[in-house]
Amino acid sequence: MAVHSEVLQVRTSGKGTYEITEDVAAVVRQSAITAGTVTVFVQHTSCSLIIMENADPTARHDLEKYFDRLVPENESYFQHTSEGADDMPSHIRMVLTRTSEVVAIAEGRMQLGTWQGIFLFEHRRAPHRRRVVVTVVGE
Amino acid sequence: MAVHSEVLQVRTSGKGTYEITEDVAAVVRQSAITAGTVTVFVQHTSCSLIIMENADPTARHDLEKYFDRLVPENESYFQHTSEGADDMPSHIRMVLTRTSEVVAIAEGRMQLGTWQGIFLFEHRRAPHRRRVVVTVVGE
Amino acid sequence: MAVHSEVLQVRTSGKGTYEITEDVAAVVRQSAITAGTVTVFVQHTSCSLIIMENADPTARHDLEKYFDRLVPENESYFQHTSEGADDMPSHIRMVLTRTSEVVAIAEGRMQLGTWQGIFLFEHRRAPHRRRVVVTVVGE
Repeated sequence: MAVHSEVLQVRTSGKGTYEITEDVAAVVRQSAITAGTVTVFVQHTSCSLIIMENADPTARHDLEKYFDRLVPENESYFQHTSEGADDMPSHIRMVLTRTSEVVAIAEGRMQLGTWQGIFLFEHRRAPHRRRVVVTVVGE
Repeated sequence: MAVHSEVLQVRTSGKGTYEITEDVAAVVRQSAITAGTVTVFVQHTSCSLIIMENADPTARHDLEKYFDRLVPENESYFQHTSEGADDMPSHIRMVLTRTSEVVAIAEGRMQLGTWQGIFLFEHRRAPHRRRVVVTVVGE
Repeated sequence: MAVHSEVLQVRTSGKGTYEITEDVAAVVRQSAITAGTVTVFVQHTSCSLIIMENADPTARHDLEKYFDRLVPENESYFQHTSEGADDMPSHIRMVLTRTSEVVAIAEGRMQLGTWQGIFLFEHRRAPHRRRVVVTVVGE
């Protein structure tokens, strides 16, 4: 049994989904762990992680539009507004998605399905540099 | 420390929740691992996993009705529609729930609470055969 | 490689968020595991776990208000109502958040970002005693 960990830096340029599947796969290969799990963990409260359909970009477009409607800006009851209109919605969108994703590893690679990709979901408008900790545990 | 992994096949016959608790428990028993975690991972983007109340079927009925309202079909801004009206909602419902669930193992069994069950949440109308990877890590 | 597990008891006094970050950190320290993951798992279907902004209490206030609106009580189609108006919404709010959170461990401590805290999210009005299983796996 072994543990292998690396930190990824992801640059974002506004709200949207940024695929990191290949970066995570590279850490799994580097670990030489052939069976176990990989935990992807993002160290922020205004972006999040999702596993999403990665073939047709319109699926992500529709997802992003859906979240803009599900969590509107400028709700009259919002008190946490000092950092801008996209601040409080970013925390809510994070809570409704995930801070960590865990993917099975077998035969030396992540067991993602054909259409599954791992994405960082950025909820802020301004550019950010995001830190993602990738931890492989197994044998 | 050891890793034990099996793939479950789950047949679905339309939208709804399908309990897989006993199938996952069987993999945990088969692993002979007495302490650690079990990661349940579904390899699809149009169904998902949830842990839900497993005693009263009306709780799942209400949950399913809620999701039908939370993520309506035929939104005018949807572009990802070539596979039918239930396609894009299925991806959104998946993102709002989970691709993986992780459950603690102690004393040789999953530490689920009295009313907790693990369910595959099918979001498509047509029958599907779904693959679920169960990975037990521990000692 | 090792596994270390402890059960936390969390007393809640109505709907809201209850921080457990320091309790989880204490289990990680106690484990003496320096690299791996910690899985926090709540054994109930009417409360859940979230990782949330932990500096400004208004962020959690707004989050709680948002969930009250997202999942209203007394929907006409609800059938699972015998335990009160907050029963079915509590299951839905649980499904929309998480039963487990997994956090990376490196250099002997959880790799939480500056503003990240771990919270039990209580969805019932009445006081409850909640059980949270903390499982550390690593080396």
